[in-house]
Amino acid sequence: MNFCTECGHRVELRVPQGDSFPRHVCTACGKVHYVNPLIVVGCVPEEGRRILLCRRAIEPRYGYWTIPAGFMENGETMAGGAARETMEEAVARVEIHDLFAVVDVLHARQVHMMYRATLLDGGFSAGDESLEVRLFEPEEIPWDDIAFRSVRFALEKFLEDRAAGVRRLHTIAFDRGHPA
Amino acid sequence: MNFCTECGHRVELRVPQGDSFPRHVCTACGKVHYVNPLIVVGCVPEEGRRILLCRRAIEPRYGYWTIPAGFMENGETMAGGAARETMEEAVARVEIHDLFAVVDVLHARQVHMMYRATLLDGGFSAGDESLEVRLFEPEEIPWDDIAFRSVRFALEKFLEDRAAGVRRLHTIAFDRGHPA
Repeated sequence: MNFCTECGHRVELRVPQGDSFPRHVCTACGKVHYVNPLIVVGCVPEEGRRILLCRRAIEPRYGYWTIPAGFMENGETMAGGAARETMEEAVARVEIHDLFAVVDVLHARQVHMMYRATLLDGGFSAGDESLEVRLFEPEEIPWDDIAFRSVRFALEKFLEDRAAGVRRLHTIAFDRGHPA
Repeated sequence: MNFCTECGHRVELRVPQGDSFPRHVCTACGKVHYVNPLIVVGCVPEEGRRILLCRRAIEPRYGYWTIPAGFMENGETMAGGAARETMEEAVARVEIHDLFAVVDVLHARQVHMMYRATLLDGGFSAGDESLEVRLFEPEEIPWDDIAFRSVRFALEKFLEDRAAGVRRLHTIAFDRGHPA
């Protein structure tokens, strides 16, 4: 960040009066520009025993498999965002159920919020950001080609809970290493 | 937003190619500036039956009571952020337990994430953003003077769960009306 969003003058990185963190502060008008973690919302869409996954057509992790997920937008709920992302990436309508995985992804400055979901009418296809979309039996899940650690975590916990007949909330924090 | 953070030229509000939402796009370098919901992290610190609340010394809702909570920062976990906010606002050390309330606050473009917590050594005092900090028996909670709907929701669910001897995750979405 180089310039103030309000007045267009240069910003400098410093700790504002009464603050504890360095921020980009405008050298002209004094505006403080905050940058905070982003929320990624996603879901695990189920059809019977099978789970819908998307193979990414974009970086990062082009060609790897993920659940439908993406950045939450203003004006929507987290569950609404998870449904929207599923429509965008998998052209699929889902019913969103409970939040079951909450992942702090420190190095990416993100929090990932994953919901259980049901595929509503069986239709799906690759959206603009997907190379392909398909249903996987649990035994078929391409564990070595999962795009992100948070997605692997969510899929593991989803299947564990389903096998045990329970619905729990799972939390974890990741930092660095394999891209999350 | 008027100016590009990267090159300092004017931005315009339009839907970028391949996007579905209007964004501030630079008229010179083409950079797209995304604005997404912010995460507020907080906790309900318990000492025995009593709960620690803070009376706000800042707007919005100056003079009203809240649980310790504030914007999550980059580089911290949500639970870590809730503990940091408690130190800042109530000068109190807490052990953070489970996430129990997740609130979409649509009109504020925020998601509020509330944790159960235990006050660790009984010490507390008013931080810079608090007029006063005190422990309340459940019967003493100033329900008419709670700052935000999300805080009221969290306190209600916290007490309901405690009375029932359960630990559940509660979710809700608020929009407009009483400031959340």
